[in-house]
Amino acid sequence: MNSTKSIKMQEKRQKILECSLVLFAEKGYLNTPVRDIIDSSGFGTSTFYKYFKNKEDVLKTLLTEFLEQIITNVKDYYKKEEDLFIRFIETKRVIMDVFIQNKQLSEIYSRVAGISDGIDNCLKEFEDKLLLFTSKNIQYGIKQGFFHEVEVVPIAHGIIGIIKYAVYKWVVLKEISQDEMIEMVISFHKSLAIGLVKKR
Amino acid sequence: MNSTKSIKMQEKRQKILECSLVLFAEKGYLNTPVRDIIDSSGFGTSTFYKYFKNKEDVLKTLLTEFLEQIITNVKDYYKKEEDLFIRFIETKRVIMDVFIQNKQLSEIYSRVAGISDGIDNCLKEFEDKLLLFTSKNIQYGIKQGFFHEVEVVPIAHGIIGIIKYAVYKWVVLKEISQDEMIEMVISFHKSLAIGLVKKR
Repeated sequence: MNSTKSIKMQEKRQKILECSLVLFAEKGYLNTPVRDIIDSSGFGTSTFYKYFKNKEDVLKTLLTEFLEQIITNVKDYYKKEEDLFIRFIETKRVIMDVFIQNKQLSEIYSRVAGISDGIDNCLKEFEDKLLLFTSKNIQYGIKQGFFHEVEVVPIAHGIIGIIKYAVYKWVVLKEISQDEMIEMVISFHKSLAIGLVKKR
Repeated sequence: MNSTKSIKMQEKRQKILECSLVLFAEKGYLNTPVRDIIDSSGFGTSTFYKYFKNKEDVLKTLLTEFLEQIITNVKDYYKKEEDLFIRFIETKRVIMDVFIQNKQLSEIYSRVAGISDGIDNCLKEFEDKLLLFTSKNIQYGIKQGFFHEVEVVPIAHGIIGIIKYAVYKWVVLKEISQDEMIEMVISFHKSLAIGLVKKR
């Protein structure tokens, strides 16, 4: 395959993803048939199925790319900041910024949980990787003697839990602004880092 | 109204709630028409509308009674335990037990978020009250000089966030057992109480 053809393929795939995102956000994931995605992309049916198995596969791809963006941005941030305390707090700002830059996907993500086993598997794949990434970072802090010897997995779940809840309040309930969402997550992490209880 | 009649009315209302819960859990909230609830209860249409405005009103009532159970059980626990550290941790076990005792409702709760504005308002009412209750308890710990002067609202959101996520993993994904769910929430709260970062 020559490189021009490869770029064109890449562009088609990208176009399908973009059209899907717009439709999912407008009509809801469940109410968007693959037919509409194909029509909206302007390509033929066979083009769609060259890149994706089905609608869930599209959602999975969107979430995978979203996660890659989170991980890339956090790793870039690590290159600039060495203080582990600041890192622990400020990486959450980096993560929340990726949610803000991907508002449509954030909304889809917040709305589709629990709808079907297939979708839950998509979300689970995404969240498991995010949990693993978060766990590894906490583990690193423990190894460096910076964190207490805490149980890592429950903390990673707590971190994903507050992020999910804050995103839901921002993008579904529209109860808080994006700045308030960031502040909520940051403030929570400061308290988690320092602890609630005064030393006795 | 004589008391026998009042008891009968109470029983009818209760019966409708129970039938709704079974149907919501079996067929999903969205796929359950009010007609099915009425048929399943064995009462007439007018009986249903004597107690409830619509299906959302049923969900709201189920969640309200669920919340009352949480608050009652936590307050009962407070009478038995005075140590603020143990209280902070162990009330979470009390709360998770109420989720476990109400598995069907837990599943509905975990599945319906983001489906419609009406449902999100039901959930919001429930969660706002739970947030308020949680915030007040943290505030009490601060007043007693037991907790640091932390920002209370983000912590309350973090607590609801991990509870929601753990319940979802237990009842929707079926990835963890009920005991693992409790242990996850308890372990997280121990870390939150003590803090991750060693004193420098």
